[in-house]
Amino acid sequence: MSARRAGRRPGAADTRGEILAAARRVFAEKGFDRATVRGIAREAEVDPALVHHYFSTKEGMFAAAMRLPINPEEVLTLLLEGGPREEIGERMVRLLLRATASPETREPMVALLRSAMTNEQAAAMFRGFITNALLNQVADALGVPHLRIEAAFAQMFGVVMGRYVLKLEPLASATHDELVELLAPTVQRYFTG
Amino acid sequence: MSARRAGRRPGAADTRGEILAAARRVFAEKGFDRATVRGIAREAEVDPALVHHYFSTKEGMFAAAMRLPINPEEVLTLLLEGGPREEIGERMVRLLLRATASPETREPMVALLRSAMTNEQAAAMFRGFITNALLNQVADALGVPHLRIEAAFAQMFGVVMGRYVLKLEPLASATHDELVELLAPTVQRYFTG
Repeated sequence: MSARRAGRRPGAADTRGEILAAARRVFAEKGFDRATVRGIAREAEVDPALVHHYFSTKEGMFAAAMRLPINPEEVLTLLLEGGPREEIGERMVRLLLRATASPETREPMVALLRSAMTNEQAAAMFRGFITNALLNQVADALGVPHLRIEAAFAQMFGVVMGRYVLKLEPLASATHDELVELLAPTVQRYFTG
Repeated sequence: MSARRAGRRPGAADTRGEILAAARRVFAEKGFDRATVRGIAREAEVDPALVHHYFSTKEGMFAAAMRLPINPEEVLTLLLEGGPREEIGERMVRLLLRATASPETREPMVALLRSAMTNEQAAAMFRGFITNALLNQVADALGVPHLRIEAAFAQMFGVVMGRYVLKLEPLASATHDELVELLAPTVQRYFTG
């Protein structure tokens, strides 16, 4: 086994990264159901067998590919220790706007949300992730009812979908400052009552 | 032509209604892309040719099937004339909660939103409908920037998706009164500054 490992060609790690990048593009475009290992292999310009070598299931590849640009622990730290409590709404809104500003970091989030909208398995996966990794943590840390955190989540979820998927105007082309002015007081109210 | 019309068998109007009801169930379950005329015919227990007789395209059937429980004109009347301006947020939230409370009226809305999330054609269809029929009308009638109306739309869109598609708890089982208390001030602030 170690001989095989030593014999692995340089750049294998990059190949895995390239497959994940291709998977993000395909999942974002097709959603979970309609994306295929074959289609991802084609997008990555590698043999499907190589994709199977790195990821035994589409689910596993999806989980690796949806590597979110927002790490839940970082979110918690930023919310709770990143500044005054009365600016927690603004910090949350700016964080999400930054994380979704570039297609590279936005695509995996949109793919995740899109899949959760159309596939019960993906919905369960997303529900488990977002509830345990983020919503419950924020609610408990702030000592706020969980329903209030979900209302804030719903606001920002709707903004991301309206801005980047439905592409409603002027929402799609509004600046970060315009959106912070509009949305931060809403999130602040939910978070701190 | 009038001879043919006179010859139409009694109950034909009900058949059309049954096909539309079946279409709503199938679109809600599959989304626009994965729903088929054949599948809708099977669901309605009629011959596919009969479906084609009433609706020449899937798009046409979708448009007829998505008959929303909320008529935009009624929304405008309710918002503007249904009570005091300082309760406009509560009226909007209660209207949407009522319209989505029963599966029968909710399914076409969820199907519409789900399709718009995953299919650019459906997104364009939805964007055109919601912008012209509702968002612009409300913004102009209230004399409020369009961006504010879209922020309110994003809040309620996120709540409907979180409650009925992602099924986040406690959002999914919250009462109308709990949600009104939480959401009405948000919508009120967007609508009246």
